[in-house]
Amino acid sequence: MQGNLVIGQSGGPTAVINASVAGIISGALKSGFGGKILGMVNGIEGLLNENFIDLSEKFSDPDKREALINTPSAYLGSCRFKMPAPGADMSVYEKLFETIKKHNIRYFLYIGGNDSMDTVYRLSEYFKEKEYKISIVGVPKSIDNDLAGTDHCPGYGSAAKFIASSVREMAIDTAVYAIKSVLIVEIMGRNAGWLTASSVLARTESITAPDLIYLPETEFDPEKFLSDVSGKLEKKNTVVVAVSEGIRGADGKYICDSVSSGAVDNFGHKYLSGAGKVLEGLVRGRLGVKARAVELNVLQRCAGHIKSGCDVAETLRNGEDAFNAALSGVTGMMMGYERISDSPYSVKSVPGDIKNAANAEKKIPKEWITPEGNDVTEAFIKYAGPLVEGEYHPKYSGGLPVYITRG
Amino acid sequence: MQGNLVIGQSGGPTAVINASVAGIISGALKSGFGGKILGMVNGIEGLLNENFIDLSEKFSDPDKREALINTPSAYLGSCRFKMPAPGADMSVYEKLFETIKKHNIRYFLYIGGNDSMDTVYRLSEYFKEKEYKISIVGVPKSIDNDLAGTDHCPGYGSAAKFIASSVREMAIDTAVYAIKSVLIVEIMGRNAGWLTASSVLARTESITAPDLIYLPETEFDPEKFLSDVSGKLEKKNTVVVAVSEGIRGADGKYICDSVSSGAVDNFGHKYLSGAGKVLEGLVRGRLGVKARAVELNVLQRCAGHIKSGCDVAETLRNGEDAFNAALSGVTGMMMGYERISDSPYSVKSVPGDIKNAANAEKKIPKEWITPEGNDVTEAFIKYAGPLVEGEYHPKYSGGLPVYITRG
Repeated sequence: MQGNLVIGQSGGPTAVINASVAGIISGALKSGFGGKILGMVNGIEGLLNENFIDLSEKFSDPDKREALINTPSAYLGSCRFKMPAPGADMSVYEKLFETIKKHNIRYFLYIGGNDSMDTVYRLSEYFKEKEYKISIVGVPKSIDNDLAGTDHCPGYGSAAKFIASSVREMAIDTAVYAIKSVLIVEIMGRNAGWLTASSVLARTESITAPDLIYLPETEFDPEKFLSDVSGKLEKKNTVVVAVSEGIRGADGKYICDSVSSGAVDNFGHKYLSGAGKVLEGLVRGRLGVKARAVELNVLQRCAGHIKSGCDVAETLRNGEDAFNAALSGVTGMMMGYERISDSPYSVKSVPGDIKNAANAEKKIPKEWITPEGNDVTEAFIKYAGPLVEGEYHPKYSGGLPVYITRG
Repeated sequence: MQGNLVIGQSGGPTAVINASVAGIISGALKSGFGGKILGMVNGIEGLLNENFIDLSEKFSDPDKREALINTPSAYLGSCRFKMPAPGADMSVYEKLFETIKKHNIRYFLYIGGNDSMDTVYRLSEYFKEKEYKISIVGVPKSIDNDLAGTDHCPGYGSAAKFIASSVREMAIDTAVYAIKSVLIVEIMGRNAGWLTASSVLARTESITAPDLIYLPETEFDPEKFLSDVSGKLEKKNTVVVAVSEGIRGADGKYICDSVSSGAVDNFGHKYLSGAGKVLEGLVRGRLGVKARAVELNVLQRCAGHIKSGCDVAETLRNGEDAFNAALSGVTGMMMGYERISDSPYSVKSVPGDIKNAANAEKKIPKEWITPEGNDVTEAFIKYAGPLVEGEYHPKYSGGLPVYITRG
């Protein structure tokens, strides 16, 4: 079946989301694919507006693909477009169908998280009833690591590496003064604690940080938190707390709600910020101890200068595998990772159910959280440790990482 | 003159403050210095409490010194101890003198910023009247780069490299959506804008970020700021603003004061935070545009994973030179940098007046700030550019940078 390939990026960017694109392009070039390789500008919005760029032309040179891999954040641009539920307004689907037919698109690879997998699922369902052969395949991407149907998500390992490295650095920074102090590091992850938990990798034989870890999977009790911190302060000067932005109290409400902005994105997600600040206030006010809250903020998803080598290599392969699956006729599936073994660490990409990925948020299993609810277990470390391994230093020029833009 | 050497670290840590220690140790070893090399634990407090560690033993092996160089933050611990004004209470001076005599300390190298240079100045003045020969030399250290008597400070280049890289990464992260948005990056620097200005290095042919730069050297006018941002938003979707934590309004008050914690450190410095948040509120409220404020926070001074190669190499040499100056009898001076040329970039270490370093805060020259007060000139770029050059990747193990602690 001849035809063209289109690639889109959607949702929040990651440090390796462009490695997915580079992997897909490599896969197509290696297979001798004869069609055009198009990129949608700003995800599905680019498809709706016929806003494409020709990637075959731009990235046939491996050096150019290397520059793309170096660059964090979505090179093609992203969107938070929500596909309407089928049955209601079908005009978006019809518009997309027209564009797809017009550009003879037969392979549709969409890189994103839960919401983007929902787009893939809905589109592939729509096409099932059409007399138009097209392979629509989802390529996972999430720093939050909350996609079901995959061992982990491309992008998570790099975010985890930045988080654990930063926590290690801030822990030794905080420990320089011979006074009692508490550092609270607020980490992304609304409902799943994978990123916050990854801070555990900061620990060494002589660095105990993070001393306490609070995840959204566990109900947060401020009194228990204060007693945890007090207990640690009895034994050491500096206590480092890793806390998810999404911790919730017994009433199910976000702890940060007293200071959150109240703004809501297109998917109805609240913009969160401030759990760390709330805890800082608690420690200072109730324990009378020096406290500082730090938000790691957007660098968690775009710190291209400290990518995981494992994450980059896997993501490239995952992109290639996703292209090959599409070429072989797979559709309406997500190309996930299946872990073959922990030691030596090994994974393979396998196409899996996309409906599940679209709708479920994968959380940390209860048994990977300590009974006290303020730490993670060895099983988590065994899971996450290999994902941050390996260094992938970007190219530097003038002392700074070289990143490319669409221009 | 036989005797022992003592090294102390003081004030806020930097990514290369341990390279100063490693440089001093190297200098001593190369010179065939026969005395002990002691480290004060927690700066002058360690000297008061006779809390020393033997550095000759720990770091005679070059691999161990390499591990020390890798490690950001103050290995010896730090303090914010303020020497009493002489004439008033002399008991601290007398206590220090006793300890110095007892341990036969003849070389006293103190690594720090303005307040630490004040300690060096006061101590050296005190010893001038004593019949005890000792060389007391200051080794500059400041991410703020605000020490007079030196072209720039060890630590500044690494902080600038982290800041400019992060701003570049966050700029492309912010630009992924096809909507109007403003990213405000709040950068350290109470009264001097060197760190905030260094964000200018993030710019490339295709990345205009930071689009606007506001320094504490220039009076901040909220209305002018809003009109600057509006003007930029007319031409592009994403506007990135770099702002110093210390910007002040026409009344001389910190813009952030409405949200600052009010806490004050031992030197009477206010803990600042929130200038970015104030600007975020202004943009959202008055311009109705999506806005996000990010504080780069403590990573600015401890991001050991992205150190400037130039900074590391210079700081090592500066430590060696400081030791050699002390050995040759220099006292009551700070070992600063003198810039020999911009292109090719070249500096040398020279002992200079410490009283000036102790009391003056060096600010960005007016002529390096654009007349509009929202950007810096080419002269600043020429000054700061070479300081971020060169990569010094730390050793990694298990995917994370290897850092050592005193244990």
